[in-house]
Amino acid sequence: MSSPSDSALNDASKAVQWHNHKLRLLDQRLLPQQEVYLDYADADSVASAIRDMVVRGAPAIGITAAYGVVLAAASRFTQSAKNWREAIHQDMEVLAHSRPTAVNLFWALERMQHRIQSLESGDPVEALLAEAIAIHAEDIAANHTMGELGAALIEAPAIGVLTHCNAGALATGGYGTALGVIRSAHRLGKISQVYADETRPWLQGARLTAWELLQDDIPVTLLADGAAAHLMKLGKVQWVVVGSDRIAANGDVANKIGTYGAAINARHHGLKFMVVAPTSTIDMSIASGEQIPIEQRPTEEVLCFNGLQVAASGAEGWNPSFDVTPAALVDAIVTEKGVVLAPTKEKMLALMAKN
Amino acid sequence: MSSPSDSALNDASKAVQWHNHKLRLLDQRLLPQQEVYLDYADADSVASAIRDMVVRGAPAIGITAAYGVVLAAASRFTQSAKNWREAIHQDMEVLAHSRPTAVNLFWALERMQHRIQSLESGDPVEALLAEAIAIHAEDIAANHTMGELGAALIEAPAIGVLTHCNAGALATGGYGTALGVIRSAHRLGKISQVYADETRPWLQGARLTAWELLQDDIPVTLLADGAAAHLMKLGKVQWVVVGSDRIAANGDVANKIGTYGAAINARHHGLKFMVVAPTSTIDMSIASGEQIPIEQRPTEEVLCFNGLQVAASGAEGWNPSFDVTPAALVDAIVTEKGVVLAPTKEKMLALMAKN
Repeated sequence: MSSPSDSALNDASKAVQWHNHKLRLLDQRLLPQQEVYLDYADADSVASAIRDMVVRGAPAIGITAAYGVVLAAASRFTQSAKNWREAIHQDMEVLAHSRPTAVNLFWALERMQHRIQSLESGDPVEALLAEAIAIHAEDIAANHTMGELGAALIEAPAIGVLTHCNAGALATGGYGTALGVIRSAHRLGKISQVYADETRPWLQGARLTAWELLQDDIPVTLLADGAAAHLMKLGKVQWVVVGSDRIAANGDVANKIGTYGAAINARHHGLKFMVVAPTSTIDMSIASGEQIPIEQRPTEEVLCFNGLQVAASGAEGWNPSFDVTPAALVDAIVTEKGVVLAPTKEKMLALMAKN
Repeated sequence: MSSPSDSALNDASKAVQWHNHKLRLLDQRLLPQQEVYLDYADADSVASAIRDMVVRGAPAIGITAAYGVVLAAASRFTQSAKNWREAIHQDMEVLAHSRPTAVNLFWALERMQHRIQSLESGDPVEALLAEAIAIHAEDIAANHTMGELGAALIEAPAIGVLTHCNAGALATGGYGTALGVIRSAHRLGKISQVYADETRPWLQGARLTAWELLQDDIPVTLLADGAAAHLMKLGKVQWVVVGSDRIAANGDVANKIGTYGAAINARHHGLKFMVVAPTSTIDMSIASGEQIPIEQRPTEEVLCFNGLQVAASGAEGWNPSFDVTPAALVDAIVTEKGVVLAPTKEKMLALMAKN
């Protein structure tokens, strides 16, 4: 079996692949200067890859963890055909502790755990790999559906859109969430210009979003995050389109740090704010965004730039990796199950009740 | 004669100095890694230093240009004791075209021009140097006055403040505008924590603000520009304090790109927004901020870092160096002539009418 991203897709990048009995990840820390693929054969190193951001983006993290469970199962079953189900708990724990905010990680681990529980005796690897590949394939399919649904919200004539961070093929199984909508809308001629916040401190916009859009021949203009409000004032964008790492039951949206400020600025200028995420990103177990754990990353990410110390020596840093945009600032949440306009708890419940 | 910044001041940095018949500038492109001083002997190279941001910050640019006129006068008078007044026009033009947004540049050149017109025959250098030094000394005095006035607006108990870019000693004759207020308020025990936006793309916050505050033993915490809204939501700051490059007659404020978004975010969270600038920054000849020319800097500042390409190859960049915050988002403009709360055209006129 091979991962679904090997098939022809409307994007040129393959962040997560199953290749020759191993997990292959595109090292996103090195993009765009180097396109290096790393192979992983055990769950511990997969967890490290997530923590160290070899792979990032909520859906991609979930898919990666699912493949990590396959690797763990192969190893544990070889160690003991009898006790592998108990032993694999430890690997699941290590994977679960790799990063705290993206709920897709826990969602994927839970789904793999359910599959494990349903297995007969015998070698579990083929069945678990099929499950991981299904998670991967469903994510890509969801992204194509969301691309259409989100693009339908964007009205002609062609407009400018702003995106933050990277919610693209690199952050998902393929095609992307926010960038899936942008790909679909661009193909329909509804987008005249894509603007991308460079997205400090990790520069996902400059390094990843620009890279993958250019691979698909979609022109992109980068700006400093602080320039977005001025861009909006000049009327250059009509929609802000972003992904999400976790959406609470009331429609509050956790996403890359800077998203919340962009949403406030969009509302101030009367622009529309769209969040694109599969339902695996929605966490109905928490009432509001206040309860979403916000990862604090190493301050070196702020004090350094591209690996070089830039800040004055002795300065402290503050580096929350995510923020929460309240549902009241969100005009549309686009999922593969449908679109929620002006999200509320009731509308989110209705969405999740759909088949 | 020597520049007033040689005297003891409550700041450790001296960005602009008159030294041994030359203008000496601290090369702010190299801070904080290297503290290098460059000497300038002619107006053309002074204009290049302003354009290339060896020196930056509206008041510092004005002072630098004034010293540039002294250098030009010395050279032109040596060339021709008779025709130097005509010849120096060309130097004034070169200086005036170095950067477009900071009005202090034009204000200082105009003041030097007035002094030139009032001169008797004979060597003009001593009189013009006295005028440049007066501009410099008045700027420092204004900053100390503004420091007191601005600090008085901040009520105990000790609060957190956020600043953007560098409106400090490095951006002025000494002591600073926004950082002057922060210095004064910190000394009074009114500030518990200073947060500084790193301020992409030029990283004035990380490189300059952190450097000069730490030189004065004022602790500072850096954050990515996009993290400011989350900081505000957490209640960690009560005031945003910034400088300005030009203030229109109605109180609209041009300042470093990112200021406008910070002002929108401050208002959204019910926080106070203070602009600190000497009256030399106020341009009563323009009705509103719409008429302030916004400098577009090279896109390499966004796409590269330290000469190294960071962004994906082929990506475009958009790099406006300033934005305009409408007066409606400004709670206080602090000048050496007094404080204007909730600025309007009428209040600005009344301020400027004061002696």
